[in-house]
Amino acid sequence: MERHLDAELGNLRSTLTNMAAQVEMAIERSIRSLKERELQMAEEVITQDHAIDQLEIQVENQCFTILARQQPVAADLRFIMACIKINNDLERMGDQAVNIAQKARNLIQEPEIKPLIDIPYMAGIAMKMVKDSLDAFLEHDIQKARAVCESDDIVDGLERQIIRELTTYMIENPKTISRALDLIVVAKSLERIADLATNICEEVVFIVEAKTIKHHYSE
Amino acid sequence: MERHLDAELGNLRSTLTNMAAQVEMAIERSIRSLKERELQMAEEVITQDHAIDQLEIQVENQCFTILARQQPVAADLRFIMACIKINNDLERMGDQAVNIAQKARNLIQEPEIKPLIDIPYMAGIAMKMVKDSLDAFLEHDIQKARAVCESDDIVDGLERQIIRELTTYMIENPKTISRALDLIVVAKSLERIADLATNICEEVVFIVEAKTIKHHYSE
Repeated sequence: MERHLDAELGNLRSTLTNMAAQVEMAIERSIRSLKERELQMAEEVITQDHAIDQLEIQVENQCFTILARQQPVAADLRFIMACIKINNDLERMGDQAVNIAQKARNLIQEPEIKPLIDIPYMAGIAMKMVKDSLDAFLEHDIQKARAVCESDDIVDGLERQIIRELTTYMIENPKTISRALDLIVVAKSLERIADLATNICEEVVFIVEAKTIKHHYSE
Repeated sequence: MERHLDAELGNLRSTLTNMAAQVEMAIERSIRSLKERELQMAEEVITQDHAIDQLEIQVENQCFTILARQQPVAADLRFIMACIKINNDLERMGDQAVNIAQKARNLIQEPEIKPLIDIPYMAGIAMKMVKDSLDAFLEHDIQKARAVCESDDIVDGLERQIIRELTTYMIENPKTISRALDLIVVAKSLERIADLATNICEEVVFIVEAKTIKHHYSE
């Protein structure tokens, strides 16, 4: 029984890892489509979100099956409960990549306001946060989790800086307003992704530090 | 055992209902603080978010206890899994109310661009969606769930209309740009709240229509 549970938990981990990799790729491609003005790539991010949605259903079903058949308790139960939430977070990151790709699709049709520098930089940090948050979760690595939470402040700072800069463009030249608003939405989507990665890491801190609670319930 | 489980599920329902009521109130007060320029009320929404966070922990612990002690299967297990996600959604709606209150706090210090009409209207629909989504979930009411999903289109339409109107203000008078951006963030927060309510309703549709899946697992 025990070894069966371990095997099922192992499968759950690989599905989540696969899902996180696909989410990272979607973010990377959504930003690349914007930066390199690749309409086709933006379209692909939008249509391929379906694969991430399918993985969400798969994780959900794996969690359901483990709970129903193995009736885990204590640390294993906390792990599954966290997976249910993290699954949701990853799927929403995928949705944010779609939002970015939709804005990219608009922006590609018009002249650039300015070369994109801060947004791809912000995206790089956000992608690393996605990867590290899942690693921190799977490895119970509280140090890595805390580092992700700290990166969130950097991302928030970049978002404010980007909005401030775009605001000056809008004031100087009202013709840029609609494009600047689209870029603000892109920055906000990246900030949301970073925020969702931070949620995952708060979960890790909670799980690792809630040992007393878990012990209380496992008695 | 069965009756014990029912009692615990009943408690879980009341905590979630209480939490949804507090979230609705936070949204209502965040928008009222903006409309009636009540700085004190905006501050209260921000400081009282702590109560919603506490309810989130309470729901999480109730779910954990039920799973560990009662080991529910089939429909009860799906219900608990949905509660774990809905709990998360409600807490995030509370965060959006805080975002609105923070923007209200800025906007109250400056002259109004125009009297607020669409934003309070949009907030009214979003609040009703929050209430109805939880009712639909607790009553397994698929009709109500579908109606909430339809309201989401109305909210998306209002968001686009608000952004369009604010864009014209920004173009005509660049001095309004920073206030208009704050109002756009408010509209986006309301759109996020409506979106989270729609997620809950998609969950309801999934639960009610996934009977075959549930039966498969309960065998």
